[in-house]
Amino acid sequence: MNDSIIRYILGCVLKIEGALMLLPCLVALIYREGEGFCYLAVAAVCMVLGQMMSFHRPDNQVFYLKEGCIATSLSWILMSAAGAVPFLLTGEITSFVDAMFETVSGFTTTGASILNNVEALCHCSLFWRSFTHWIGGMGVLVFLLAIIPLSGGSHINLMRAESPGPSVGKLVPKVRYTARLLYLIYLALTVLEILLLLAGRMPLFDAITTSFGTAGTGGFGIKNDSLMGYSAYLQWVVTIFMVLFGVNFNAYYYLLYRKVKKALAMEEVRWYLIIILCATGIIWFELCKGGMQLAGALTHAAFQVASIITTTGFSTADFELWSQTSKTVLVLLMFIGACAGSTGGGIKVSRVVVLVKTVAKELNSYIHPKSIRKVKLDAKTVEHEVVRSINVYFATFMIVFTVSVVLVSLEGKGLVTNFTAVAATINNIGPGLELVGPTSNFSHFSNFSKCVLIFDMLAGRLELFPLLILFHPAVWKEMRDQRHAPRRWFGEAKYSRRAPR
Amino acid sequence: MNDSIIRYILGCVLKIEGALMLLPCLVALIYREGEGFCYLAVAAVCMVLGQMMSFHRPDNQVFYLKEGCIATSLSWILMSAAGAVPFLLTGEITSFVDAMFETVSGFTTTGASILNNVEALCHCSLFWRSFTHWIGGMGVLVFLLAIIPLSGGSHINLMRAESPGPSVGKLVPKVRYTARLLYLIYLALTVLEILLLLAGRMPLFDAITTSFGTAGTGGFGIKNDSLMGYSAYLQWVVTIFMVLFGVNFNAYYYLLYRKVKKALAMEEVRWYLIIILCATGIIWFELCKGGMQLAGALTHAAFQVASIITTTGFSTADFELWSQTSKTVLVLLMFIGACAGSTGGGIKVSRVVVLVKTVAKELNSYIHPKSIRKVKLDAKTVEHEVVRSINVYFATFMIVFTVSVVLVSLEGKGLVTNFTAVAATINNIGPGLELVGPTSNFSHFSNFSKCVLIFDMLAGRLELFPLLILFHPAVWKEMRDQRHAPRRWFGEAKYSRRAPR
Repeated sequence: MNDSIIRYILGCVLKIEGALMLLPCLVALIYREGEGFCYLAVAAVCMVLGQMMSFHRPDNQVFYLKEGCIATSLSWILMSAAGAVPFLLTGEITSFVDAMFETVSGFTTTGASILNNVEALCHCSLFWRSFTHWIGGMGVLVFLLAIIPLSGGSHINLMRAESPGPSVGKLVPKVRYTARLLYLIYLALTVLEILLLLAGRMPLFDAITTSFGTAGTGGFGIKNDSLMGYSAYLQWVVTIFMVLFGVNFNAYYYLLYRKVKKALAMEEVRWYLIIILCATGIIWFELCKGGMQLAGALTHAAFQVASIITTTGFSTADFELWSQTSKTVLVLLMFIGACAGSTGGGIKVSRVVVLVKTVAKELNSYIHPKSIRKVKLDAKTVEHEVVRSINVYFATFMIVFTVSVVLVSLEGKGLVTNFTAVAATINNIGPGLELVGPTSNFSHFSNFSKCVLIFDMLAGRLELFPLLILFHPAVWKEMRDQRHAPRRWFGEAKYSRRAPR
Repeated sequence: MNDSIIRYILGCVLKIEGALMLLPCLVALIYREGEGFCYLAVAAVCMVLGQMMSFHRPDNQVFYLKEGCIATSLSWILMSAAGAVPFLLTGEITSFVDAMFETVSGFTTTGASILNNVEALCHCSLFWRSFTHWIGGMGVLVFLLAIIPLSGGSHINLMRAESPGPSVGKLVPKVRYTARLLYLIYLALTVLEILLLLAGRMPLFDAITTSFGTAGTGGFGIKNDSLMGYSAYLQWVVTIFMVLFGVNFNAYYYLLYRKVKKALAMEEVRWYLIIILCATGIIWFELCKGGMQLAGALTHAAFQVASIITTTGFSTADFELWSQTSKTVLVLLMFIGACAGSTGGGIKVSRVVVLVKTVAKELNSYIHPKSIRKVKLDAKTVEHEVVRSINVYFATFMIVFTVSVVLVSLEGKGLVTNFTAVAATINNIGPGLELVGPTSNFSHFSNFSKCVLIFDMLAGRLELFPLLILFHPAVWKEMRDQRHAPRRWFGEAKYSRRAPR
């Protein structure tokens, strides 16, 4: 295992985080808050440590999928741990597990909180909380790729481990260029949202933090009642931008190059929009049946549907009080999630579409045993390997999900609470139902359950495998071996390991 | 489509059912109950109708997987409809949907009931209810195979559609012989259980009906409190037999031929027993922690675990009142189910084992990208096609499950009730949690929800695809075409359809 490159990447990540932490310091300066010094101190430590770790650039820069996965998981864990320290220093959160939960929830764009009173936080902490969403949304390693050069095929192994969805393959030859472009689109959309929110007379600070939460599909609010207190115009702006950030970013890529037809033909995006429309329709109908006004019901239905399917987790209404049908539809949306290649979480629309098509194909083979039909997406045949990996992903997801529910159930809370708490964290949404409903939070869980949920958030964001292999005995063995014979793996590399395509 | 053979098979099934319905008439004679005449009348009608339908044996006896699936689904629906009539005639159940629910629940060995007071039924109806479990457990078409000869490879298409689990392929060359042997083992085990129950001073009628319920892994009791009122000895006998009927019957086949080693080496059976032991251990611990006595807690824990994992559904305790952990473990067992090739339902242990192994293999491929490891079961490589079909099965299961929960949620009951009601029916278990808990029943659902649950019971018993293809447009189209041009399909068969391998 090439551990010097992993160390180097971790160092870079720390440096970047240190630099980004200067922004909350700036906020503290504007609002004249003493807590800014805590952020400044942590930023300085991060930058020094990061500089030390990445001072010597390793000669051997080739690394494989395994190293890519390990570097990604460790980066996210390290980043979260460092990001949690300021909360402890300011005294706003007193336990380390809680601070870690809050930061992981931020970086993974989950938006599940352990804070009972968000409004008690100082401005710089509120800013940092929302800013972690924005950083985590596009992925910190994608950012790294945009600015540091790595040799050959190594980029793709980092990007594959961090990017949501089944395939990034087609972007290979121009990874760095793509990474920059992605961040540019991301930035442009965020700025646009801030401007539109300002136009609706939202205060600047609120507009910036809300836009960060929307862009990363995170969901941390700066008010205790999330977005309930804002005007319908503001709620609609956020609704539309939530939907936009849940779209596969390839669509914007196509639009940028004036390939409008290609953008419109993207099957995943079409299904994504159809699902949103149907779900909104059903819930709208249910709300009106329950006696709500037509316009208000539509606003609430559209907002909650967009918030849940894109896994953002903002709320304008306590859907805990809605009808059973509406709640069931929302729980369903939690699992479907946004498009692949967006900032959202969940299983992803394209995976669901391929699964449904596979089932349809199977049914067909019972009727016409001799026919050979392929599963197609965007009029292209989905390769057998992709179908297989989606099936495996789905199975792994169910296993991790089930084990988590069992572990969380150990502390004796209700089935719906446990089930939706795990669903809301592994899909990076935020709120669930009952004890973790939109007006509640996660503070009542034991430290053990919080650790399980932290794991779920990371597993959900990194799409399971990069995090799971950290627990593989072979990885531990290699790490142990390496401590005893530090050079061995480089020697072996020449003979037994070749760079991936 | 060869519809004359389907008609012929349906006729045979009706005849058999008519004959079997004479047994409750005998019970009525013993207990001098007038309701016996209702059973006699229905039996007569079934036999006459069946004789008419199967009078002319079709010349073309070859049929394909499609016909096998359609014949199986239609048989089960017809059988249930006919079996429901006596309940209506005796006036013990007044609505057709309710009667159908009860009979489908019987034949599919689910054991979910809509009756509020079981003890009010006459003896012949109680007997018929339990007897449907026994008939449905091994499958009525397997019985058909044992007694009527069909040509060539056609048997396997019927057997494959009705038998639980991923593969019956290896039994091909001697299907009829195997079918007879299966029924023999089934009968022997049932008789053994009756004798052991009698030894524990259970009344004969109770012993027979309870054994029928155990053998089919059904769960209809003849008391309102299921098995709570019986002695610990009787409960343990039932526990052990539930476990035995959940074992892959191939194990008994091996034992019969003195291949003890081969029987002991069956990986699925070993996992099945390990899961039972672990689950019992956890629940035992939880019950003791809750203040129950050691011995009593073990009896209850073992009984409920065996009852749920084998999808029988008897109960000796109201597990609705147990700790959250125990309930979560039980819900988990609902999905795992018994072994393939047993009379139990659920996803089946072997499918779960293969899924877990597939995930482990995937993880390994991240660490050693060049290694080619195959998924193995019983030291044999699981064929790629089997892994694929298991994945598809799993995906289909989740889709049917999800759609059902959404449909049932339309009437506004709680999430846990809807979720476990669907889980308990699609896995053919019986009781769920909350409103469908072990001391409740399914009578409070609307007719629409009952129809959804009836569909789920059939889909679960027939392993989804045979029932689902009934809804495939191509099947409908063929049936319509056939009415207009009745001879056409026979002609076509010569050119475009060949018998499967």
